[in-house]
Amino acid sequence: MTAISYELIKTDKQTGARLGILHTPHGSYETPMFMPVGTLATVKTMSPEELKEIGAGVILSNTYHLWLRPGHDIVKEAGGLHQFMNWDQAILTDSGGFQVFSLSEFRKIEEEGVHFRNHLNGDKLFLSPEISMEVQNALGSDIMMAFDECPPYPAEYDYMKKSVERTSRWAERCLKAHKRSKDQGLFGIVQGGEYEDLRKQSAEDLVSLDFPGYAVGGLSVGEPKETMNRMLEFTTPLLPADKPRYLMGVGSPDSLIDGAIRGIDMFDCVLPTRIARNGTVMTSTGRLVVKNAKYARDFGPLDDHCDCYACRNYSRAYIRHLIHTNEILGFRLCTYHNLYFLIKLMEQVRQAIREDRLMDFREQFFEQYGFNKPNAKNF
Amino acid sequence: MTAISYELIKTDKQTGARLGILHTPHGSYETPMFMPVGTLATVKTMSPEELKEIGAGVILSNTYHLWLRPGHDIVKEAGGLHQFMNWDQAILTDSGGFQVFSLSEFRKIEEEGVHFRNHLNGDKLFLSPEISMEVQNALGSDIMMAFDECPPYPAEYDYMKKSVERTSRWAERCLKAHKRSKDQGLFGIVQGGEYEDLRKQSAEDLVSLDFPGYAVGGLSVGEPKETMNRMLEFTTPLLPADKPRYLMGVGSPDSLIDGAIRGIDMFDCVLPTRIARNGTVMTSTGRLVVKNAKYARDFGPLDDHCDCYACRNYSRAYIRHLIHTNEILGFRLCTYHNLYFLIKLMEQVRQAIREDRLMDFREQFFEQYGFNKPNAKNF
Repeated sequence: MTAISYELIKTDKQTGARLGILHTPHGSYETPMFMPVGTLATVKTMSPEELKEIGAGVILSNTYHLWLRPGHDIVKEAGGLHQFMNWDQAILTDSGGFQVFSLSEFRKIEEEGVHFRNHLNGDKLFLSPEISMEVQNALGSDIMMAFDECPPYPAEYDYMKKSVERTSRWAERCLKAHKRSKDQGLFGIVQGGEYEDLRKQSAEDLVSLDFPGYAVGGLSVGEPKETMNRMLEFTTPLLPADKPRYLMGVGSPDSLIDGAIRGIDMFDCVLPTRIARNGTVMTSTGRLVVKNAKYARDFGPLDDHCDCYACRNYSRAYIRHLIHTNEILGFRLCTYHNLYFLIKLMEQVRQAIREDRLMDFREQFFEQYGFNKPNAKNF
Repeated sequence: MTAISYELIKTDKQTGARLGILHTPHGSYETPMFMPVGTLATVKTMSPEELKEIGAGVILSNTYHLWLRPGHDIVKEAGGLHQFMNWDQAILTDSGGFQVFSLSEFRKIEEEGVHFRNHLNGDKLFLSPEISMEVQNALGSDIMMAFDECPPYPAEYDYMKKSVERTSRWAERCLKAHKRSKDQGLFGIVQGGEYEDLRKQSAEDLVSLDFPGYAVGGLSVGEPKETMNRMLEFTTPLLPADKPRYLMGVGSPDSLIDGAIRGIDMFDCVLPTRIARNGTVMTSTGRLVVKNAKYARDFGPLDDHCDCYACRNYSRAYIRHLIHTNEILGFRLCTYHNLYFLIKLMEQVRQAIREDRLMDFREQFFEQYGFNKPNAKNF
């Protein structure tokens, strides 16, 4: 009996995209799905009730950030992350590795783990597979991630090969250090950058370790979208069909659809919540910077085709005013709308898979959103 | 038929405090009541639904701030302030006078009005009784306030006398300039500082103009609480019993009770919302700075005796973590709790009046909250 299991419902005839159900100790969720990010044990600006209202299923929280503040010992003492943050649905925690490589300074990578200075006060810290497991076991997330190295893009072949091999050794150590496999499922992370043979090597290493799920890591780190899609097409067939597949850090509407087409089941990204706090929203006809002065007298909703709480009750003019004056309700409304937009998008993706018309849906969505325009922004 | 009327239900036998109902074009509300402040057409951090959930009735918004941003013309174009901010209950707007005197620079007061520079960019502006009425008519609030001068404390007698006389002349001009008396009620503001004869003069001038309600202004501006109470005791008997009485800018629990005891029906203050954003909350046993490190492992609620959403679902440790990391949900939870606290306090005050035991309630509340301690903070 494993904590996490995946049930394949059907495969889209046009593309191979998968409709499935992810079973967790805190509920079952239809896939493909988008997971909102709650870095510091809160999805920025949102309450748990609002997340449920928009249909959020699994949320993600960041091990590195919670390790530093408030500290995993405090979260454990509170009864775990679910209890601490008042969230009774599933939680996925990352390993901390990505933040160590993207946020911290003076990194030194050794076989044992990574020495670095934290981004808050410069304190010396050390993170390893064993420590990441200890922290994630204390947090009590439903899905934990193996501690890996996420090399920058582009990386030299020789460096990437060594890194992939170390990540495989670390994955094995993670499995050994993981103390709560009955109620927490540990996912392995396939690395290898843009090198197909290294992706293959990484996938084979990890699949032989029999994780309950697999992530494709090291994408959406600066490479062209074509490279990401090519790597997904190459990698997902190497992963077992009866396990969930998670594409880390991806949340732009086009990439969600293109990822699903290539057999991805789970996505997460700070994009919808981050751009919301800058007054930018996703709409059915493309992105809209509502804080711009030109919306000062626009009394229509953020998105004419949206029925979310923000669009039903507030005008662009009002939300523009709130963002312009730094009022928290403005950040709340934009965040609410953006998360609703992506969650509804994934519902549409699942419906399209159900009806074997995902490529048609893609075509229609891309056209309406403006992704087909020659000058389409990489959004 | 006036827009605003007051229905006196009963008077507390111990104190003369009044239980009543304020009738407005957007609903009827029991008094004494506390009105949350929504400076820029939003009660900071809160949604309208949350305000209703905690039992808020009338909210206050600031004419000066809305005049500058987004501009009263935009609010008018949106259909008025209720429509603009999605609030279908009553709204009171101040006159802008207080902000001109407290926020702006290079003020020059003339008979016609006040020249000043705005606090955002230093632009030259001019505000007068007529302009304040025009802006408030455009906003469409249920209760408008007359444009007055609120002199600083302490002020010389001679200055105060001239100011009071000018405020009376301005009040008359406000009445003449007010264009929507059928759906907006205009309140006069009694000034006079700590001088009883000037309070009397001001009250008589304004009462002769027959406003549908009266505010006591120029208190809670730095004077001792005893002075405020003495001035209230002197002033409220000069006001007609069949009109509502509003004490401006007062929101500390002790002053709400002491104001009600002296016949005040309406209060407003930024205190509960402002201190919330600094991680300070009001509890049944006094104030608590939840952002302090000592609450890092305190897994109890903000207030053991509170049944608000924040207290039912979150621990001090979690809220402390959120405030410590500047997470918006932390500001939301503290704001929610503080407003709930004051709104419940006013419910208790009304119940005590109903049962002729307001002084007993005061004694008990002051004891528990710590206002009777020799070193009690002026909170």
